[in-house]
Amino acid sequence: MNQVNRRITLASRPDGYPTEANFKLVEAPVPSIGPGQVLVQTLYLSLDPYMRGRMNAAKSYAPPVELGATMVGGIVGKVIASEHQKFKVGAIVEGRLGWQDYGVSDGRDLRQVDPAAGPISTAVGVLGMPGLTAYFGLLDVCQPRPGDTVAVSAASGAVGQVVGQIAKLMGCRVVGIAGDPRKIAYITRELAFDAAIDYKTEDLDVALDRACPNGIDAYFDNVGGQVSEAVFRHLAYRPRIAICGQMALYNVEAPEPGARSLRFMLVHRARMEGFLVSDFADRWPEGLKRLSRWVKDGKIKYREDVVEGLENAPKAFLRLMRGENFGKLVVKVADQRPTQGDNS
Amino acid sequence: MNQVNRRITLASRPDGYPTEANFKLVEAPVPSIGPGQVLVQTLYLSLDPYMRGRMNAAKSYAPPVELGATMVGGIVGKVIASEHQKFKVGAIVEGRLGWQDYGVSDGRDLRQVDPAAGPISTAVGVLGMPGLTAYFGLLDVCQPRPGDTVAVSAASGAVGQVVGQIAKLMGCRVVGIAGDPRKIAYITRELAFDAAIDYKTEDLDVALDRACPNGIDAYFDNVGGQVSEAVFRHLAYRPRIAICGQMALYNVEAPEPGARSLRFMLVHRARMEGFLVSDFADRWPEGLKRLSRWVKDGKIKYREDVVEGLENAPKAFLRLMRGENFGKLVVKVADQRPTQGDNS
Repeated sequence: MNQVNRRITLASRPDGYPTEANFKLVEAPVPSIGPGQVLVQTLYLSLDPYMRGRMNAAKSYAPPVELGATMVGGIVGKVIASEHQKFKVGAIVEGRLGWQDYGVSDGRDLRQVDPAAGPISTAVGVLGMPGLTAYFGLLDVCQPRPGDTVAVSAASGAVGQVVGQIAKLMGCRVVGIAGDPRKIAYITRELAFDAAIDYKTEDLDVALDRACPNGIDAYFDNVGGQVSEAVFRHLAYRPRIAICGQMALYNVEAPEPGARSLRFMLVHRARMEGFLVSDFADRWPEGLKRLSRWVKDGKIKYREDVVEGLENAPKAFLRLMRGENFGKLVVKVADQRPTQGDNS
Repeated sequence: MNQVNRRITLASRPDGYPTEANFKLVEAPVPSIGPGQVLVQTLYLSLDPYMRGRMNAAKSYAPPVELGATMVGGIVGKVIASEHQKFKVGAIVEGRLGWQDYGVSDGRDLRQVDPAAGPISTAVGVLGMPGLTAYFGLLDVCQPRPGDTVAVSAASGAVGQVVGQIAKLMGCRVVGIAGDPRKIAYITRELAFDAAIDYKTEDLDVALDRACPNGIDAYFDNVGGQVSEAVFRHLAYRPRIAICGQMALYNVEAPEPGARSLRFMLVHRARMEGFLVSDFADRWPEGLKRLSRWVKDGKIKYREDVVEGLENAPKAFLRLMRGENFGKLVVKVADQRPTQGDNS
């Protein structure tokens, strides 16, 4: 076992887009554990948009990362030492142990992952937080009905790709919005979305008119900003809008001016709701069970963007912030199988 | 009976704030009626913010007023000729007969008003559309619970004054936002709101911090714009926001830039919903029954701003657009009791 724990810490708070200088790789001894604790070796680190919010000093729905502290993040790892009854050495677990090689947990935030259910990286993807976010945000917040037109932004991302496929399963017309010809091809050809719009090259109003002739009944919003404002001009009657993320605005240095009026809310009799996946924590087993079944049956496909090496996490995170990832972004931190000489 | 029907028509469409030149008073003969119709003499004309939207060419939730056509509007009037079984001569009715001395109806949009229930002008006020808007918007959209902090904008207006009083009846802490020291004094002293904020003279963030120490659980929004953006910075957990009107933005010449981010929706897990009183048309009898009881019992007070003379309606409407009315704005068009020589 490598005796060094590399941690990526928050070195400074970004103004606008983060840079690599906001992060610092620190080496420390691998921590030891006490009674009731487990030591987990990180195999995959999940990179997600919410992390940008934690880099700010302002309190949001969760406390900020302190300067000098390890960046927060979900990981999939292997238990390599345990004084905890439930988690045995060798078990694969998912938890929120942050951007580091090794983490210690008291087990409360750990979830055992069944390696037979699929590649273990999916425990932070389609069979983890992003998949559950899609599941509850679409089904419980957007409440689509068969025949509805469902629009989703960041449509090829970790959450968006699952949103669109569940909506297709339900008999909805699905329109994905993304910013790259490869992403557009992927969601329409691989995932069978009914239409796709490239917000970087198309006139949004023209494209939405064409793709949503009967208006938009449900909108799953991952990005906010101008894309959403265009969607709001194309709503049907009594649409449901789920606010999941506002990625387009996380890196603006000053509050960005936009269309101020919420008049569309009453003109269309819209309902808009903000949610976090943690709001549905008591129903995660339900969501995971169904998502697993759909993945096994090939009804839900997924695409990962895998980066090698913990040291490359900051650079990969900057790609995520610019929408340059293609699929669920994960960092492969270590091999799942023990390497020679590894005596764990 | 006066043989001339004065109609106030839409002469031109306004850019931004309307002016008197946008209206034109036209004289025409009093219309005659056919089988199944009634002739109604207007006694009170209601002036309401939604009328501004109808002056635009763009289709909204209702069609625009055509150039040269009589301005739309709710009225309370007296049936002075009838070939309709249900409505007898002398009956007091409420309907949407527009800005004119006399209107013809087939009875479908008329509602009989009980003059014993209170001053008949209340049929376009607390016991009419504005009262019902407050009733359903607060109870069904905002869904307040006792102990909730309820904020309402345009708090002394036709809708706002009723919203706040129903919320008080329910055991809520009520915070009214208005733009005049007389209005502030009225809602706190006469209507017993717990706190009031003058958005024209106070720092909204400081005032909201003071008035809503536990955050805002329910917000009934009549105005939108900067006032709402400040309210959104002071939300509690799982707040409900009813979008009833966006008065602050009806008269802007170009889309006004505002804070673009909807991130507050997910940070606070807010639900926002736009509604029209017509969405609850099947439950108006329920609402009117309860509002009437509360008014009779003195539990709901109301304040009217009465202007004399149909010819003064345009000028009064401009006051409404600038928030210079104080209470429900109505135009007294004719006396309720027949004048001498009136042989109706």
